[in-house]
Amino acid sequence: MFETYENDDETGSTRGLVTVMIPMLSEDHRKHIQETAKKAGFDCTFCENEEDARAFLPETEVYFGPGFPLEDRAKKLRWIALPSAGAEPFTQPGALPEGVQLTNAAGAYGVTISEHIIMVTLEMMRRRADYLDIVSRREWRRDLPIRSIHGARVVIVGTGDIGRETARRIRAFVPEGIIGINRSGVCREPAFDRVLTVERIEEVLPEADLLILCIPGTPETSGLLDARRLAMLPEGAYLVNVGRGNCLDEEALLEMLRTGRIGGAALDVFRQEPLPTDSSMWDAPNLIVTPHISGNMTLRWTMDRVVQIFTDNLERYGAGEPLTHTVDPGRGY
Amino acid sequence: MFETYENDDETGSTRGLVTVMIPMLSEDHRKHIQETAKKAGFDCTFCENEEDARAFLPETEVYFGPGFPLEDRAKKLRWIALPSAGAEPFTQPGALPEGVQLTNAAGAYGVTISEHIIMVTLEMMRRRADYLDIVSRREWRRDLPIRSIHGARVVIVGTGDIGRETARRIRAFVPEGIIGINRSGVCREPAFDRVLTVERIEEVLPEADLLILCIPGTPETSGLLDARRLAMLPEGAYLVNVGRGNCLDEEALLEMLRTGRIGGAALDVFRQEPLPTDSSMWDAPNLIVTPHISGNMTLRWTMDRVVQIFTDNLERYGAGEPLTHTVDPGRGY
Repeated sequence: MFETYENDDETGSTRGLVTVMIPMLSEDHRKHIQETAKKAGFDCTFCENEEDARAFLPETEVYFGPGFPLEDRAKKLRWIALPSAGAEPFTQPGALPEGVQLTNAAGAYGVTISEHIIMVTLEMMRRRADYLDIVSRREWRRDLPIRSIHGARVVIVGTGDIGRETARRIRAFVPEGIIGINRSGVCREPAFDRVLTVERIEEVLPEADLLILCIPGTPETSGLLDARRLAMLPEGAYLVNVGRGNCLDEEALLEMLRTGRIGGAALDVFRQEPLPTDSSMWDAPNLIVTPHISGNMTLRWTMDRVVQIFTDNLERYGAGEPLTHTVDPGRGY
Repeated sequence: MFETYENDDETGSTRGLVTVMIPMLSEDHRKHIQETAKKAGFDCTFCENEEDARAFLPETEVYFGPGFPLEDRAKKLRWIALPSAGAEPFTQPGALPEGVQLTNAAGAYGVTISEHIIMVTLEMMRRRADYLDIVSRREWRRDLPIRSIHGARVVIVGTGDIGRETARRIRAFVPEGIIGINRSGVCREPAFDRVLTVERIEEVLPEADLLILCIPGTPETSGLLDARRLAMLPEGAYLVNVGRGNCLDEEALLEMLRTGRIGGAALDVFRQEPLPTDSSMWDAPNLIVTPHISGNMTLRWTMDRVVQIFTDNLERYGAGEPLTHTVDPGRGY
């Protein structure tokens, strides 16, 4: 699929090309990237869409933009800098060509995604959709039973930047406890009461009043929350997924929502995105659907961080130093 | 209006009556109140509406329920225990008859109201209403600029239970700072960066990205946020009111919402409640209207606390000890 290319590294001869394809960058961001590229010895081009970026690929050494399947033509490519935390479509072993480094923008999304998680959690617990209906009819009704993060048993699957920022914020709401789930069973974040390995997830599911999924979409996470495991959740539990849609059995979840078996779910990610217009997800009961916006770069702080992570790395790349934020394609983060 | 009554305190002769008028009490709660009353030497009756409660007033020594204007007939009444944090209609000097104690349930509402505040704040900052529209059309649009509590300058007017619980939770979202405003300029809660007296409110309004009002409805707080002060808020500010409607110039706020001068407002309380069906509040742009539900007793934890505060006090009352949670009618809390 991709042919390794022997680059001649004669410094000073021809300048490498940095291709950037992030349409929503501000003028300040563009200027900052351009200046950093220049200092590092690169030319720099900004593309507004994937088609433009593909046209520059044969000349590109560094690509900064969302991932898309590479072509044989990208022979000079040495580094793909993703502006996202997820690493699709490079999460399968072998998807990344040999000799190409992959980095992400982990650390840029915890702040905004944790705010999304807490917003939709409170919306579910506090019957926000029902009260929106009541208010739309100009009624003054106040008697709906509500629930609270206070005293809730919370399980967060994924203890990266997103899981940790979420745990810190939830801690302030005084839950009964917060259990983290990850591969190693270790996390230094003190907001977690305990951290268990993913092999032990079934021990905690029956006690998860609030289950938050913030794990990458990899072969390993695929189907992690299958129908059997979803059925272990306690009556009236709430589920939030901001990671990737592959980890969840959507049909089983829909059935549990229809029967009222769980209290609600808030999905920002789906097995198929964009969610097809004929999907039964759009109007399922007690399901909050959002169009993959929890970690949106439309938050200025997030975009600032995404750009800073890239330009810091671009300086390192220009100086021949090791990059930070490197992604292991086999693990997906 | 109310005639003082000389009670004869012959213990053991006739038992006093505790009248409870909180229709949403669970069976457990009723049983707990009944048993506590019995131990304290009282009979106890539960009323489902104000009319029933009024019928029992002539025999009632202790009333536990929402406030309503008293009549001359309540000659045996010695203690009004409000299940609310606010103390209407007893916040005017003289509204409470001589010889009658007044208590509230301060401390029962901070948990739930702070969750409401954070929910509606995030809804405004993250363009929740616009995304609900987008999703209702089954569109996959993701480009709306959003904002964050992270880095925001927060001003909380009122540093009681509600203000403090809110400050603690907001602190976890890493704002630029949290300034509290109260009468004394003193508050031991470390979640506040600074606490200023209400006389200095105009110093901080121009820097309030998020202004949260959680103050009681008293003559002193009436019109605190008038048109002139609202105009001091920075461009795009957000305002949340969960205290009482009297503190805010609603017309001035509506005008600022219509012109886009501020980013949004979330009002749970209004000058007139229920909000009249012909009010222009119901469909004002960027205004979240909720029917006074932020501190709803429909949260089990809140109701548990409300009942516990009352029964603890009922034990004290029966033992002739001083009550906690007493309200100064002149201050309103």
